[in-house]
Amino acid sequence: MTEVYEKIEALLRSLGVKKTELKIYRLLLNRSKAMRITEIQRELGISERSVREHVLSLYKKGILKRTLVQHGWLGYVYTAVSPGEVLESLKKNIIKKISEIERELKGSTNQNGQS
Amino acid sequence: MTEVYEKIEALLRSLGVKKTELKIYRLLLNRSKAMRITEIQRELGISERSVREHVLSLYKKGILKRTLVQHGWLGYVYTAVSPGEVLESLKKNIIKKISEIERELKGSTNQNGQS
Repeated sequence: MTEVYEKIEALLRSLGVKKTELKIYRLLLNRSKAMRITEIQRELGISERSVREHVLSLYKKGILKRTLVQHGWLGYVYTAVSPGEVLESLKKNIIKKISEIERELKGSTNQNGQS
Repeated sequence: MTEVYEKIEALLRSLGVKKTELKIYRLLLNRSKAMRITEIQRELGISERSVREHVLSLYKKGILKRTLVQHGWLGYVYTAVSPGEVLESLKKNIIKKISEIERELKGSTNQNGQS
C-alpha cells in the first residue's frame, strides 16, 4: 500500500470509519469488481450480519457504490468508489455539515443578542 | 444545552473528540474564564494526568487557547475557543488536510499513468 493510501486510511479513521470498514473498502478497491455480501464475507471471514452493517455504513458515507442485480437471486453488488471521489465527497459533506451548524449558530446568537 | 450546541458536540465527537474532552470544553465554555489544570481537575474529579492529556489534545485541535501566566507559579491557563471559531478552524483544517492528500494522489496517479 502506498503512502498516500495510508494517509487516506488515516483520514477516514479520524472521520469515524471503522477498521473492518476499511478492510472491506481495501478489498473492493483491490479487486476493482463488484462483489456480493456473501463474497465479501467469505474473503474476510466475518459474519454476514457484520458485513451487512459495515457495507451499509460505507454506502451511506459515499465510500461504496451499489447496484441492484438479478441472476437467480435479486440483490445488491458493491464496488469501491475511487479514493479521489471519496476525498471529494468527504470534503463536500463536511463543509456542508459545518456550514449548516454555523448558520444555526448565527441564528441562535442573534436571537439571544450578543453572547 | 441548546440544540445547536448538541450538534456541535456530535460533530466534534464524529471528528474524534473524546467525551471527557467535551466535558472540559463545556466547563470552560460555561465559565467563560481562564482555568488552570488543577482547577479543571477539581471541578470534574478526574486525574491531573488525564486532564493534562485531554487539554493538550483540545489545544492541538484548536478548541482551547492557552496563556502562560505567572503568579507565584508559572504555568498555562486555558480558555474555550468560541463555538463559531472552532467550526471555522475545523473546516479550514479538514479542507487543508483533504486537499493535501488530493494533491499527492494526483501526483502518484500521474507517475503510474492512468489508474
